[in-house]
Amino acid sequence: MLHIALLGFGVVGSGTAEVILQNQKQVAAYCGDEVNVKYILDLRDFPEHPLGDRVVHDIQVILDDPEVVLVAEMMGGAHPAYEFTSAALKAGKHVVTSNKEVVATFGAQLLDLAREHHVSYLFEASVGGGIPIIRPMQTDLASNEILSVSGILNGTTNFILTKMKNEGAAFADMLKLAQQKGYAEANPTADVEGLDAARKIVILAALAFGKLLDPNKISTTGITGITEEHTALADKLGGAIKLIAHTEKIDGRVLALVSPFLVLPTNPICHVDDVYNGILVGTNMLGRALFYGAGAGKLPTASAVVADILDILSGRSTDRRLPHWQVAGADDVADVASLSCRRVYVFEGCPRCEAKAKTALASEDSVWLCDGKFAVISAKMTATDADAAIQTTGLCPILSLPVLD
Amino acid sequence: MLHIALLGFGVVGSGTAEVILQNQKQVAAYCGDEVNVKYILDLRDFPEHPLGDRVVHDIQVILDDPEVVLVAEMMGGAHPAYEFTSAALKAGKHVVTSNKEVVATFGAQLLDLAREHHVSYLFEASVGGGIPIIRPMQTDLASNEILSVSGILNGTTNFILTKMKNEGAAFADMLKLAQQKGYAEANPTADVEGLDAARKIVILAALAFGKLLDPNKISTTGITGITEEHTALADKLGGAIKLIAHTEKIDGRVLALVSPFLVLPTNPICHVDDVYNGILVGTNMLGRALFYGAGAGKLPTASAVVADILDILSGRSTDRRLPHWQVAGADDVADVASLSCRRVYVFEGCPRCEAKAKTALASEDSVWLCDGKFAVISAKMTATDADAAIQTTGLCPILSLPVLD
Repeated sequence: MLHIALLGFGVVGSGTAEVILQNQKQVAAYCGDEVNVKYILDLRDFPEHPLGDRVVHDIQVILDDPEVVLVAEMMGGAHPAYEFTSAALKAGKHVVTSNKEVVATFGAQLLDLAREHHVSYLFEASVGGGIPIIRPMQTDLASNEILSVSGILNGTTNFILTKMKNEGAAFADMLKLAQQKGYAEANPTADVEGLDAARKIVILAALAFGKLLDPNKISTTGITGITEEHTALADKLGGAIKLIAHTEKIDGRVLALVSPFLVLPTNPICHVDDVYNGILVGTNMLGRALFYGAGAGKLPTASAVVADILDILSGRSTDRRLPHWQVAGADDVADVASLSCRRVYVFEGCPRCEAKAKTALASEDSVWLCDGKFAVISAKMTATDADAAIQTTGLCPILSLPVLD
Repeated sequence: MLHIALLGFGVVGSGTAEVILQNQKQVAAYCGDEVNVKYILDLRDFPEHPLGDRVVHDIQVILDDPEVVLVAEMMGGAHPAYEFTSAALKAGKHVVTSNKEVVATFGAQLLDLAREHHVSYLFEASVGGGIPIIRPMQTDLASNEILSVSGILNGTTNFILTKMKNEGAAFADMLKLAQQKGYAEANPTADVEGLDAARKIVILAALAFGKLLDPNKISTTGITGITEEHTALADKLGGAIKLIAHTEKIDGRVLALVSPFLVLPTNPICHVDDVYNGILVGTNMLGRALFYGAGAGKLPTASAVVADILDILSGRSTDRRLPHWQVAGADDVADVASLSCRRVYVFEGCPRCEAKAKTALASEDSVWLCDGKFAVISAKMTATDADAAIQTTGLCPILSLPVLD
């Protein structure tokens, strides 16, 4: 019998218990032994739940029990989740987590701590919900150099943008709908302002490049400024506006950002709709690979937590294979101004203005919209160069977005 | 120094050498030691190649060298690849392969043989080229019960169908184009008749359900009967015709088939175009996850071979974790007639015929095409039930395809 403890019995915690109970036979076959949820740490009691008798309110009970070999932390929030994780690792217990805030903020220290105590610290569920992405990046793509990661990492905003595009609806109305459907929280700031996606891209950037950036310091733009006019415009250009989290290395420095992008239909991310997430990894041998699925939700996220539990309990994962992350210094971080990509601009004006803008932006794509407006897609350039180019035309863009193609 | 041997120095074999040489530092860091290609087995010599001095023509040299811990088989064809693989496993050497024919035909025996000799037998590159699919199914989805796998597993036919749809072109012309571009071989039978996809779905079915079906005995329909009229019709219905390899369990038996399907746009596979592959795995906890990328090609496929090599040389993979496959008996296999799904039919006739067909097929979707033709999408039913229903109408369909939605 392999004994584990769950920290937090909210949505993901109770889902994890459900996955283990429902797929019990399979779990036991995989680990070569039965898995038993010995403790559940929560402030509340759950007298009606079949595992209600496992509930404890003091972390010390779990830390002191040598039978508990693994702790699954699904509390959310940085504290006390970070302190409990540290204590569990120091007590020689493996830890798996769905808590992106803890991984994005303290991941480097916690991985060091895990190595020091010869246990594992896994976090597949912290990015992309149930979508396999962390482990594939570490194993299947190990033969590749990772060049970039671009993804839709937040299902709430993807739902809102998809609805805005398909129904010509306003942001505020679709946010309300997302709240009614339970996709968005009463306070939706972390989702719609991009902070949730920022935490996740910081984790993927650390996996790709070994440097952990501060999620609060990367360039983060949400979708509150996107109007139904913008989504309709993207549709006319054959693409879609998506909230993209992106990371790549520029001159040896790590760039990570979150921003609305115009995604062209040649990029498979363009077709990732509704609450789904999609993560495109660019590599030097395989080319581009897309991982797509449910980026949130009780059972999908729990399924990733349990995959990590199985990885450890079956003996596949050892501390020797944990990634080495360094906390990024100022010299490790690229400024968002150094991002070179195609960009879409919307201007108001005459055909001569259009010709001028196309020349200035070295553009091969432009399209006329209604009311004397036109859109121009620039050649690959930095925002600074594009701004300078536009200044020479005397035109003033009424919309500008980077393009993912 | 970890010594390995490559069997076959064609496209994938030479690509594997290239991936190892080009990402050498990373490979060494992952394995904790340098990886050395000690031998290359091929009938030819490669005096110009930097590894030309490693070429041998006798498998026995490799089998007899105790320094060689791993053999990568990339010869293609069932024989002598099967015999060489068996001999290597018996000699206590790990084997990784890109050879779908060997895995689909002899996988069950070879996995048993590997276990018997306490070595690994891995085959990530045998399905989906470089796309991570075999290992994610075994690790990331281990907490799930796998319910179905549906995929575009052949890039050549996907290129042809995509071109037919986008350019209104005929099958024969697009096959010629695929041959010019090097996507299709001079003898394209295995691709266009579906045998290549059949071998791959048999491997995925064995992973999902533990039974290895005979790839030559599953229901396999290729794309030679698809015309530009059919692809245009699919476009009108908002979807696309794709060559789909599908497996699921029906009443405890394994169904596997290859057939053109109408894929509706709600299914992410609908947007997998050109030579790309996409594999959708349905599970009981995570829901649907899609894996997308380059399904063939020198470096993508080699990248998957090297991922398997790294998995073994880093000590992650052991014989204890190899899947158990049984050769499927007659009782293990479901007949294709038992597949229940929506189906699309095209008829010629009047509005009254349309009403009759919709009623008979319990349909909620129909659309008028040109020349007095209409398409009806049935409710979920078996082909037998659908045929019986159509018989009651007195109509004769001029096209029928299963629907993936």
